[in-house]
Amino acid sequence: MINQKAYALGANRSCIRDLFEYGRQQAAIVGSENVYDYSLGNPSIPAPPEVNDAVRAILNDTDSLLVHGYTSAVGDYEARRAISDDLNARYGAATRPEEFFLGCGAAPELVSVFRALAVPGGELLTVAPYFPEYKPFAEEAGLVFKVVPPDVPDFQIDLEALAAMLTPSTQAVLLNSPNNPSGVVYTRQTLTALAKILREKAAAFGHPIYLISDEPYRELVYGVEVPYLPAIYPDTIICYSYSKSLSLPGERIGYVLVPGSCADSQMVYAAVAGAARACGHVCAPSLWQKVIARCAHLRPDLVRYDRNRQALYQSLAAMGYEMAKPDGAFYLFIKAPGGDANRFSELAKKENLLLVPGDGFGCPGYFRICYCVSYDRIQRSLPVFERLIRQFQ
Amino acid sequence: MINQKAYALGANRSCIRDLFEYGRQQAAIVGSENVYDYSLGNPSIPAPPEVNDAVRAILNDTDSLLVHGYTSAVGDYEARRAISDDLNARYGAATRPEEFFLGCGAAPELVSVFRALAVPGGELLTVAPYFPEYKPFAEEAGLVFKVVPPDVPDFQIDLEALAAMLTPSTQAVLLNSPNNPSGVVYTRQTLTALAKILREKAAAFGHPIYLISDEPYRELVYGVEVPYLPAIYPDTIICYSYSKSLSLPGERIGYVLVPGSCADSQMVYAAVAGAARACGHVCAPSLWQKVIARCAHLRPDLVRYDRNRQALYQSLAAMGYEMAKPDGAFYLFIKAPGGDANRFSELAKKENLLLVPGDGFGCPGYFRICYCVSYDRIQRSLPVFERLIRQFQ
Repeated sequence: MINQKAYALGANRSCIRDLFEYGRQQAAIVGSENVYDYSLGNPSIPAPPEVNDAVRAILNDTDSLLVHGYTSAVGDYEARRAISDDLNARYGAATRPEEFFLGCGAAPELVSVFRALAVPGGELLTVAPYFPEYKPFAEEAGLVFKVVPPDVPDFQIDLEALAAMLTPSTQAVLLNSPNNPSGVVYTRQTLTALAKILREKAAAFGHPIYLISDEPYRELVYGVEVPYLPAIYPDTIICYSYSKSLSLPGERIGYVLVPGSCADSQMVYAAVAGAARACGHVCAPSLWQKVIARCAHLRPDLVRYDRNRQALYQSLAAMGYEMAKPDGAFYLFIKAPGGDANRFSELAKKENLLLVPGDGFGCPGYFRICYCVSYDRIQRSLPVFERLIRQFQ
Repeated sequence: MINQKAYALGANRSCIRDLFEYGRQQAAIVGSENVYDYSLGNPSIPAPPEVNDAVRAILNDTDSLLVHGYTSAVGDYEARRAISDDLNARYGAATRPEEFFLGCGAAPELVSVFRALAVPGGELLTVAPYFPEYKPFAEEAGLVFKVVPPDVPDFQIDLEALAAMLTPSTQAVLLNSPNNPSGVVYTRQTLTALAKILREKAAAFGHPIYLISDEPYRELVYGVEVPYLPAIYPDTIICYSYSKSLSLPGERIGYVLVPGSCADSQMVYAAVAGAARACGHVCAPSLWQKVIARCAHLRPDLVRYDRNRQALYQSLAAMGYEMAKPDGAFYLFIKAPGGDANRFSELAKKENLLLVPGDGFGCPGYFRICYCVSYDRIQRSLPVFERLIRQFQ
């Protein structure tokens, strides 16, 4: 006898992975230069050279037992101090190293936070469009997963709808900005208004409503502000990852920040640690902790992403595609010509243009493009986009 | 409102960690040379030099996007092939790369396997003495955790007691050999007899009883055989870690093997993957996957552990301490003079000799020594052991 929920989670492949596999198969047939795969959010700029330099330096200057040994479960103190110093310098924050829990990337960090806040009947509210794994993470944690409908066409937050969905059982609101899949950055105005609503509701309900901020794309932003949320809403818990900012998605390193400002912060922190332990967390990969201790101040070189972003946004908009302004991450979220994103994606697939329909993101009628690809692929794909939209004009 | 179980898991420090912290504090007062800390099972021999060489080579010869990029959730194919080839060559096994799931060390791998097999009322049976984290891992997975009493003084398995504890709800039996904390290796005779019992009971119950083999110490063995379990009992699932064999405990790399011989192997494999996904597993750290692809054949240099083992075993036995023959891992599990291991450990602590009482391992009256320490520390500690046992003779 097998756990059927676990089996279903393991056996049901994601639509995105399927598209990606299809792209690889097609590439073998028609040549990779003729497949325009926009399916996977895999960074296409390499890690900053300082990262590999730091690895080499650590192997040379640090005792092997220390480099590769267990750290405490919460993480190497030097790494936590480097992260804390960096955030404090950038945002005028007052974090302390003790408020950070180093994790194996945003996914397990979110799981730990969800489980730390999972009480019977507890609800987690997020905003469409949203990263599809939130749902199994929340439901397997034992939370009721609720979604605020998308705020079209700008993909900020429909605050009225959100306010109406808050209940005494709401344990947390989950945000992701810069957003996957929309590429939108929530503005300070949006977040300030949200904070006001949450404060009022929390006071009315008599318990905190935590704001969980999933921030793997925080540094991937093109000329707009990504506000530091704990300064706007103290009961914020941040889940961060170096997957995108340092192009280390496979290495599984990031952190949970439970700021001292947060209600019951020490209890929340302990519960996050306990939830991580119950999932088998021992420590984040130790070499990468030591790299972060030396590299927490580095920022990605966004020149190539930005060139892709502008080329696609301007070209597609000129063709008549409609989309929100993509200020962050490496995604465009585009209204499907004809209104049916699944049908449009199927048409595109026949031309070896691989787009992800928005249904899985809680937003049918749109499709996602990951522009972390070569500039050349973008240029070659534009005629295909042009042909496709002509069929609907 | 916080998840109280998660909070308790995060807030309650382990007795072992407390001892270790105490040792560090005492070292600051009396000098580290006067603290005989045997508390932590942290490898004391460095990783083989080939490991760091492999890291350097990978950074030099492999594209950064590939080195640090996402792998598939189940892991890099080359790494899985290297592991499969190595096991097949050593044990005449017929594993295939597709049967391996690369994980972030034995802890999350065990959690995934437990959750894959967690059905309502399902029971997990292990054998005392056992690694204390098994209990929260199993209970948080939703399994009933049951323990077969220890087989004193040899710490093999009390097969009669085990057979009596198998029920139609038994989903799996969990073994750890070489064993933490006893240092004992289960013999082929023990395992063959166990397999016979499990086969009979499984037939009687009409469903498989899986054998989960937690094998982080498989390569740490001194002149005796560690049988390859799937050859003895096909319904075996192996959880392995390179923490001890390559002295990489902080790097979080290992694997689950669900052999093709295993009942419903593909369903079990998918459920393990799904359970891992629900805990936030994305992939094992990618650089370390690539290291394993090059280093799966390496074995630890056990000369220093063996010297420690023999020095302690012979000296302590000569003083009158009683313990099972320590054939594997880096532990001795010793009968407490006077019979009360907590009292004995407290007496020892006053002499800055740090021993872990066996209660947490499900085996009161014994204490554990981790001999992954310097030979010098062992020599300096022997007079303390001598003084202590004299008080009881």
